[in-house]
Amino acid sequence: MTVQTRLSLEDLAVGDEFRSGEHALDEAQIIEYAREFDPQPFHLDASEAESSFFGGLAASGWHTASITMRLLVDSVPIGNGVIGAGGEIAWPRPTRPTDVLHVVSTIREIRPSRSRPDRGIVTMECLTLNQDGETCQRFVPQLVVLRRGEDA
Amino acid sequence: MTVQTRLSLEDLAVGDEFRSGEHALDEAQIIEYAREFDPQPFHLDASEAESSFFGGLAASGWHTASITMRLLVDSVPIGNGVIGAGGEIAWPRPTRPTDVLHVVSTIREIRPSRSRPDRGIVTMECLTLNQDGETCQRFVPQLVVLRRGEDA
Repeated sequence: MTVQTRLSLEDLAVGDEFRSGEHALDEAQIIEYAREFDPQPFHLDASEAESSFFGGLAASGWHTASITMRLLVDSVPIGNGVIGAGGEIAWPRPTRPTDVLHVVSTIREIRPSRSRPDRGIVTMECLTLNQDGETCQRFVPQLVVLRRGEDA
Repeated sequence: MTVQTRLSLEDLAVGDEFRSGEHALDEAQIIEYAREFDPQPFHLDASEAESSFFGGLAASGWHTASITMRLLVDSVPIGNGVIGAGGEIAWPRPTRPTDVLHVVSTIREIRPSRSRPDRGIVTMECLTLNQDGETCQRFVPQLVVLRRGEDA
């Protein structure tokens, strides 16, 4: 836990932006994740991947999502945690072993919960970008954010 | 690689259902994934999780998604692989250390690609269910499926 300000619903505004640190990928990480969770040839073996749909080794989309989550946890200081109820996810281009990823998160909408007065639902747009500014993942989650004094 | 029939676009029909095998979770797996990708107290420590939003240890949603992908790879035998361009994801309830997960995938829509005649886009609904039939994750991906003879 870092000693930074933890944010409640009242502290957030549409347009607020959070920039993460960087995560450098490599072939070993891609293969390690794929062995456990997504064992398909284009995520497991660089030479087999050459002749595949991806034309070269690519990270599992879920690996990109997992790294994105790690970067979000370290860059979006919401008091009750980064808790998503769900959202839309897209992978416009493959994540490659040479990619260095970072995430830019922007608040797009804030609305009070209808059923629970202690919280709101915050729509965020989280772009996972590589070192050339190309978007490897776009995730638009609905986050649950508690009001001040309600942080668990 | 198993020696099962690999399916092309022509082999798929709306309503086709695929049922996966099972994956039994436990506290150690949840904590191991969380340490690497989602280090928040409610995913890392059962006693801290008690007083959190989740009221007990819960798997990261991305861990549930990763396990789901593993179950999909083993149960949806598409010739060119299970390749998602993106989709909608939701976690209606937390995944718990005692959960035994399986995935039921149903084809909801099939449409030819407008720009690429060698492929189609298949909308699938993938429900990740626990041992009590409760939905821990709903994922509705757009899959890229090649026509026969186009399998890489």
